[in-house]
Amino acid sequence: MPPFEVPEGDPFGPHNLPYGVFSRAGSQERTVGVRLGDHVLDAGAAALALGSPYAALLARPTLNPLLAAGRTAWSDVRRALTAWVTVPAHQETVAPFLHPLDSVTLHLPFEVADYVDFYASENHARNVGQIFRPDAADSLTPNWKHLPIGYHGRSGTVVVSGTDVVRPAGQRKGPADPEPVFGPSVRLDIEAEVGFVVGVPSRTGRPVSLESFREHVFGLCLLNDWSARDVQAWEYVPLGPFLGKSFATSVSAWITPLDALEDARVAPPRRTHPLLPYLDDAADGPGGYDLRISVAINGHTVSEPPFSTMYWTAAQQLAHMTVNGASLRTGDLYGSGTVSGPEPAQRGSLLELTWNGREPLELPDGKRTFLEDGDVVTLSAWAPGPDGTRVGLGEVTGRIVTA
Amino acid sequence: MPPFEVPEGDPFGPHNLPYGVFSRAGSQERTVGVRLGDHVLDAGAAALALGSPYAALLARPTLNPLLAAGRTAWSDVRRALTAWVTVPAHQETVAPFLHPLDSVTLHLPFEVADYVDFYASENHARNVGQIFRPDAADSLTPNWKHLPIGYHGRSGTVVVSGTDVVRPAGQRKGPADPEPVFGPSVRLDIEAEVGFVVGVPSRTGRPVSLESFREHVFGLCLLNDWSARDVQAWEYVPLGPFLGKSFATSVSAWITPLDALEDARVAPPRRTHPLLPYLDDAADGPGGYDLRISVAINGHTVSEPPFSTMYWTAAQQLAHMTVNGASLRTGDLYGSGTVSGPEPAQRGSLLELTWNGREPLELPDGKRTFLEDGDVVTLSAWAPGPDGTRVGLGEVTGRIVTA
Repeated sequence: MPPFEVPEGDPFGPHNLPYGVFSRAGSQERTVGVRLGDHVLDAGAAALALGSPYAALLARPTLNPLLAAGRTAWSDVRRALTAWVTVPAHQETVAPFLHPLDSVTLHLPFEVADYVDFYASENHARNVGQIFRPDAADSLTPNWKHLPIGYHGRSGTVVVSGTDVVRPAGQRKGPADPEPVFGPSVRLDIEAEVGFVVGVPSRTGRPVSLESFREHVFGLCLLNDWSARDVQAWEYVPLGPFLGKSFATSVSAWITPLDALEDARVAPPRRTHPLLPYLDDAADGPGGYDLRISVAINGHTVSEPPFSTMYWTAAQQLAHMTVNGASLRTGDLYGSGTVSGPEPAQRGSLLELTWNGREPLELPDGKRTFLEDGDVVTLSAWAPGPDGTRVGLGEVTGRIVTA
Repeated sequence: MPPFEVPEGDPFGPHNLPYGVFSRAGSQERTVGVRLGDHVLDAGAAALALGSPYAALLARPTLNPLLAAGRTAWSDVRRALTAWVTVPAHQETVAPFLHPLDSVTLHLPFEVADYVDFYASENHARNVGQIFRPDAADSLTPNWKHLPIGYHGRSGTVVVSGTDVVRPAGQRKGPADPEPVFGPSVRLDIEAEVGFVVGVPSRTGRPVSLESFREHVFGLCLLNDWSARDVQAWEYVPLGPFLGKSFATSVSAWITPLDALEDARVAPPRRTHPLLPYLDDAADGPGGYDLRISVAINGHTVSEPPFSTMYWTAAQQLAHMTVNGASLRTGDLYGSGTVSGPEPAQRGSLLELTWNGREPLELPDGKRTFLEDGDVVTLSAWAPGPDGTRVGLGEVTGRIVTA
């Protein structure tokens, strides 16, 4: 079958067209690629061959120039790419630039500016509260329903899917330990999240409103915010997570443009508390996304977290992040926080899935409380697309290697 | 007086030579400059005129190439610059490239990669503990003496001295408020800190030892970590400071190389708790720096925090930050945390100086609890230099403007 014809039901058909950065075997040269089925189109080379003005955005080693170009350019480029892979006259021209996915190397698709991680799933926050503060009157902290809680992470350790994750070492101190001990983390965990990628910057002192979300955010990806629970538990009071999170954050190699997810937009859960005006999205269109995530360990699915259950939307997170006047830069990345649904089999972390290690998971290769060396974790997801299709998100995978 | 002869006692004599980035009036072109008295030497132009190989590091719009070049290059470049401004034959060649400081514009001297802020002053941590947790048995959290507590900040809002700071807006909720309210911060504060600038990167999974500090860290600067205490108080449980800090962090325009501060090295305070081996600096040379900081509001000195009192050293902070395998990048910046000495007049924040607003400061222009619009805050500092000289640090100043 010619590579332009993807099988019926393929979640990476021409209705999807996520963006990445790749290099070909034997070459160090990186360039923007667009995924079609199990092939990648060298979008820059195609643009040059067609004399397209978008070559300036696509024949580049990162997505940053495209990200910075803004919504009108994003839509125009997407329309052009759709034509190149679906209109026979264009197909003939660009066919030489279509490479099998398994023949290329995928790279971190953009230069990460600031990385922020949120905590936007009510189910996740309640589970964590019950596990760590079993005697509290409310499993949520008092601020939780009033603002999307977030913190800054380490952008220098954001890595692309497929990168090995070295088990981190650090201090930990259990309740029975008289002094902290040092060593490799024994409670290494995953956090299944969705990451949002900022394209258009904003100016200092100018908050970005809820309505401006789509003018600034280009697209999204799956994100695994690896977490060393023992390190985190000892360090995080009073200034929050630091080394328990900063060793690695994995993102998928493919950034799905928001334009591919129009059919996946859904209303967020009903708000149980009144919101301050800058966060009140009652008058807006549906601000959530119906993304069906799967979490697998060594190929065995352990959870299916539904992103549609997130209490805070990405637009609210962006509005909150900038309401103090903080500026955005091209390449800013923000994670949704662990996605956990209401059911036990919908929890996005091992902390929750095993209830802090007390209820081990039964996997084909043995029991698991937290991750073991050699474990391969894979997040994948799809969203409803046009006409009953599915829009696939690029998977994010990583293997734990010995410290 | 020819500009090469700085007045006796000038803290910016040829024993200092801090690095910055400047542009000349009417020009957008940025280049590396070195401060000498009240002049700046266009170091790139001087290097080119002298045929120096260091032009490749100095005729650049940021310090990043010099930062990345490593300790041997740092020492060699410094030796060359010292000769250029002190040896008559060289002086003649480079004289045309010496510009009055008041004729140039100073810029953020390097591209900030990740920004981390620590909490390393025991006096500060105890003051904050007493203010916010008056009933706690110990004003320090249990982890404080075992590890240098830190968190990631927003590198995109690090600004150079002289940049106005827009009063941030945000949510706050006092104990008497039934619901959070939104508006400009009414408890805007300063934090007098020292920032350390990473030059040489490190690899993922390879911790940087205490002994390697000087191989990775190029120099330091003054840093004001502006803080909206009301925003911070409401948001920071459980994931730490976010919008209360992310609107602006000011750094001085001049980076003082560690090589200029050899005479300022002092032993840190006696450790009261045993340290894990990766933090144990008992066998190392003096890891502290004797920097005498002044904090002024509208020209009136309100505090003189002594950096020599910091419990955790910059080398310990670097070792801790990387012990989990997190990598360093050129341009990483980390703040010491608020510097507060044991005396009331040595406290580095208004939170402490006014004991959470209960004891206003008397300034010539009226009382202060927290900062008012129009207030100009200036941090300055000096350190002991060779032969009884003083090594000046570049000041960091900022004016509060209305939201």
